[in-house]
Amino acid sequence: MGSFDEATAVRRIGDGRYSAELDAAYGFEQALNGGYLMAVLARAALDAAGRPHPISTAASFLRVGRPGPAEVHVESRKSGRTADVARVTLVQEDTAVVEAILTTGTLDGDAEPVYSADIDGLPPLGECVPFGSEPESGFAAQVELRYDAATMGWLDGQPTGRPEMRAHFRLREEREPDGVLLALAVDSLPPVVLNTGAYGWAPTVELTWHMRAVPAPGRLSLHGHGRLVSDGWFDEDVEVWDSRGRLVAQSRQIARAGRNRH
Amino acid sequence: MGSFDEATAVRRIGDGRYSAELDAAYGFEQALNGGYLMAVLARAALDAAGRPHPISTAASFLRVGRPGPAEVHVESRKSGRTADVARVTLVQEDTAVVEAILTTGTLDGDAEPVYSADIDGLPPLGECVPFGSEPESGFAAQVELRYDAATMGWLDGQPTGRPEMRAHFRLREEREPDGVLLALAVDSLPPVVLNTGAYGWAPTVELTWHMRAVPAPGRLSLHGHGRLVSDGWFDEDVEVWDSRGRLVAQSRQIARAGRNRH
Repeated sequence: MGSFDEATAVRRIGDGRYSAELDAAYGFEQALNGGYLMAVLARAALDAAGRPHPISTAASFLRVGRPGPAEVHVESRKSGRTADVARVTLVQEDTAVVEAILTTGTLDGDAEPVYSADIDGLPPLGECVPFGSEPESGFAAQVELRYDAATMGWLDGQPTGRPEMRAHFRLREEREPDGVLLALAVDSLPPVVLNTGAYGWAPTVELTWHMRAVPAPGRLSLHGHGRLVSDGWFDEDVEVWDSRGRLVAQSRQIARAGRNRH
Repeated sequence: MGSFDEATAVRRIGDGRYSAELDAAYGFEQALNGGYLMAVLARAALDAAGRPHPISTAASFLRVGRPGPAEVHVESRKSGRTADVARVTLVQEDTAVVEAILTTGTLDGDAEPVYSADIDGLPPLGECVPFGSEPESGFAAQVELRYDAATMGWLDGQPTGRPEMRAHFRLREEREPDGVLLALAVDSLPPVVLNTGAYGWAPTVELTWHMRAVPAPGRLSLHGHGRLVSDGWFDEDVEVWDSRGRLVAQSRQIARAGRNRH
């Protein structure tokens, strides 16, 4: 089992073509994690553009990503002063798995916000709880999440009715956050819809996320919530705040709600 | 000057290729409105997929759209049971202007939400104010917006400091809302960043929006806000609520803040 950087590594094999070896360690029973796939896409897009930061990523999840070989195809659509834009596709067995548009650029690590919203309440780490016992394999063996117990009622069959989920996030290995790790972070919470009583597999259809600032070392805080669950669809926004209390990433995904009800 | 439907019409000219005539009526001094361009993209994607609703649209704005001839290229990437996904590109003079991924599908007009957030405060229409005198041409001659005066301090050189904008929306012509009009609505407010004192041209880099429900006839309510203005970038979320009080669309864009300060 390799490190996050090994698991997301890409190797240039041609003009705008990269190979990758997708790692089962970032998988669930049904599929590889979407954030992990986006991290792999980001690596290829950043290399192709020669830019350090994945400013904006819009990803449509067409098919389930599986462990094993993959290619990433990067097609530049604009190379500008401030940013580059490319179509980026994750391909397995000659079939598109994720279709994305990535904007890459350079954020100023010393920028001071002109305006920032406030972080909403996530209890201190010591008051937050793990999901269960320490797992030996799979996604939860890579990522340490410590949850706000107020958003975890669904675990005990008592969903709160509010589509919210909050947690402290870090990798279990020693590795500080950067733009590529933020791609993993924005899609690492359990689906917020669990708290409205919809259980089961909740596949992401589209996820757009923006890197807003260079994260400081330390844990990240994830604040997830949704606005509407209707007609089999739900939305999930995740804000990522760093250890300085800065908003460093924001995402929204639209997904299909699980079909099982509590 | 044609109707909205005429201004957004596309004509199939080949396999996945459509022609359009972009209408200056949906323009500002600098460029055609991004929402208008997304409405044209939606028309082509819906026609190509044979689906009624633009469930999810992720659009990167590469270059300024200009009045005159354009093509829309639609390349199907998945045709599924619930939804179709396509790459959709707006092209002018053989150059990509907007690069998008569109998911199309069918929403149930009678769906009752499992969960919905509450609408936040927009004063009744009678208490809201127009931008200025009735314009004779351009975007404001097509779209009637009536603003919450509490979010318009920037007009008098007194920005509130909070990146917010709220308004009632309808076309000036008689035409009820649908999925294509929602594409226009999500990008029709002035930039929320005006209320943090950043004036001037604020070009959208990426905008993702989701159609969440079939809108009822009548005016729409637009609720725009941002979370972070930093390093020359800002985000703007717009929720669109219909006359029944249902959340029918939600968007987020990331854009460059205007460089002039009040």
